[in-house]
Amino acid sequence: MNIHAKRIEDMRYLLSSKNLDAVLVTQPKEIYYFSGFHQDRTAILITKKRAFAVLPKMFLDHFKQTASFIEPLVYENYHEEVLKLIKKENLKKTVFDPSLESYAEGKFWISSGLKEFSGLVSSLRMIKEGEELERVRKACKIAAQTFKIIKPKIKTGVKEVEIAAEMEHIMRKLGASEKSFDLIIAFGENSALPHHETSHRKLRKNEAVLLDFGCVYGRYCSDITRTFFNGKPSEEFLKVYSIVEQSQKAGVASCLEGKKGREVDAVCRDIIAAKGYGQYFIHGTGHGVGLQIHEDPYLNTKGETILKSGMTVTVEPGIYLYGKFGVRIEDTVLVGKKKAEPLTR
Amino acid sequence: MNIHAKRIEDMRYLLSSKNLDAVLVTQPKEIYYFSGFHQDRTAILITKKRAFAVLPKMFLDHFKQTASFIEPLVYENYHEEVLKLIKKENLKKTVFDPSLESYAEGKFWISSGLKEFSGLVSSLRMIKEGEELERVRKACKIAAQTFKIIKPKIKTGVKEVEIAAEMEHIMRKLGASEKSFDLIIAFGENSALPHHETSHRKLRKNEAVLLDFGCVYGRYCSDITRTFFNGKPSEEFLKVYSIVEQSQKAGVASCLEGKKGREVDAVCRDIIAAKGYGQYFIHGTGHGVGLQIHEDPYLNTKGETILKSGMTVTVEPGIYLYGKFGVRIEDTVLVGKKKAEPLTR
Repeated sequence: MNIHAKRIEDMRYLLSSKNLDAVLVTQPKEIYYFSGFHQDRTAILITKKRAFAVLPKMFLDHFKQTASFIEPLVYENYHEEVLKLIKKENLKKTVFDPSLESYAEGKFWISSGLKEFSGLVSSLRMIKEGEELERVRKACKIAAQTFKIIKPKIKTGVKEVEIAAEMEHIMRKLGASEKSFDLIIAFGENSALPHHETSHRKLRKNEAVLLDFGCVYGRYCSDITRTFFNGKPSEEFLKVYSIVEQSQKAGVASCLEGKKGREVDAVCRDIIAAKGYGQYFIHGTGHGVGLQIHEDPYLNTKGETILKSGMTVTVEPGIYLYGKFGVRIEDTVLVGKKKAEPLTR
Repeated sequence: MNIHAKRIEDMRYLLSSKNLDAVLVTQPKEIYYFSGFHQDRTAILITKKRAFAVLPKMFLDHFKQTASFIEPLVYENYHEEVLKLIKKENLKKTVFDPSLESYAEGKFWISSGLKEFSGLVSSLRMIKEGEELERVRKACKIAAQTFKIIKPKIKTGVKEVEIAAEMEHIMRKLGASEKSFDLIIAFGENSALPHHETSHRKLRKNEAVLLDFGCVYGRYCSDITRTFFNGKPSEEFLKVYSIVEQSQKAGVASCLEGKKGREVDAVCRDIIAAKGYGQYFIHGTGHGVGLQIHEDPYLNTKGETILKSGMTVTVEPGIYLYGKFGVRIEDTVLVGKKKAEPLTR
């Protein structure tokens, strides 16, 4: 069975278990998830028995080639066509995700009798299996290999933007379709800005280098950060690095089925806090990685999602000393029943 | 005055004219528009007298460096911080855009006393001036130049993906930061799919080649499509090409201040329909281009926005003969008072 068709089956199982009649899917990445067809201006409606795509005429031929297991309907007016279908199929409880529809859209769906229901598709997407897990693995391997290739080229005098361009080029040569986000290449005091914008700054002797990057392979993302020192590291850098390293290692090891996102966050945070650097760890510990670079589950102080085997998440604690340097270490990690597996090494 | 600070002034003028107290801006591209700082998880609140950014601690240092004309406030809880600020500043009529907030967010804002108001920021963003218009121009020039460089390399036997990779490389060498969307490189019958996904198909002798591409320069996008024939064009291709060319030329010429989007669409559509190909022009005529590749205003059968000098829009009619070939010709065009200026030539 086609992997996308199987996911429609999985969704049907979910619909039954939640006592729902149908779910409306409108985000391009989620349309891809269920059909293999990546487009906007399209909706997929999955019912307990059938699956429909409501799409503009311009996509029809292409859609039929890609997703023969979904019945396509061409719309003139998008909203009217969706409502006509819901009526025709007599779907009493059709739901949409309130965090994925705009307020304007959601208000219209609610006024038309649909209900909001959070995280239905996300609960499937969080678990990576088969081909999609292989793609995440490959995206991670490419990123890890890219670090090995670029590291010897990072020398005093190079610019952040030059390293970013070179890394993108390497990732593509290794098979990636693109970067998974704008690379953060930060030298010296720039490394203390967690979301630094890669600039024309040149690397000087005896300063920190932070590389936060990733790529897309077969639509799936990877995410990795490495920090090191160009020259002879200062005492302070060595100390901070060692704390972050310890924190990250413990965090990775705790990515086990049954843990909550906030428990992994606490593992990382407590180690940094115990060493007196708590106030300098100014972001969450990690996030899910898949079709999106940031997706469920989130590993932060509020993360209530219980980790399950097959989830792929980042673990990326950091310490940022503004005006001096920052250290962040990040791997994309596969959650396991007994053992977490870092994929970006 | 800083260009971003000037836009805040423009927004204040709008707020006054609409009798509003403040606008909440939460989309990364719109945050960039008003601050020069491009991030998610951040909000900007513009009032008639002041401007605030509500952001996580991790962005604070960076934000202060970038946008000294906006007062930053660090949040622990995003929603609470925004509401506290609205209360403190005594803002009775604070609005958000219902098409840009999610349903979940919008519902929360409404329940907290905010109001929905459509298209406030968009009405400013539609008009490109000064530095941003220069960036659109440059992005368009790079795209046009890329076509000249790639065309002689498109020969029998090359793969669509190879041409796409080469074109991306050229655009970057010419100064682009990235592609503005996934390039559509379509050979033969693939050209009849308006949103074809670039594949490993090889170019054969005597078939159509369609290239739809663009790049980003200084965060601003360009969009261009060229179609030609590899070999000796068939009678049918020549006929269809000539109709689309006529339609596109007339469409470009009609991008004048005062016209509605649907009027430009009608100009293109009527020419194609008069030649008997109306049913094969299966999409709208164009869209605005700027920080986003698709943005207001839309030139389609429903486009009611009145064009103004300084808007940059695409004009891209097409005829698609499924199983055979498609022809689309597209330029990004600067709307003028007396004359439209194609930027991608």
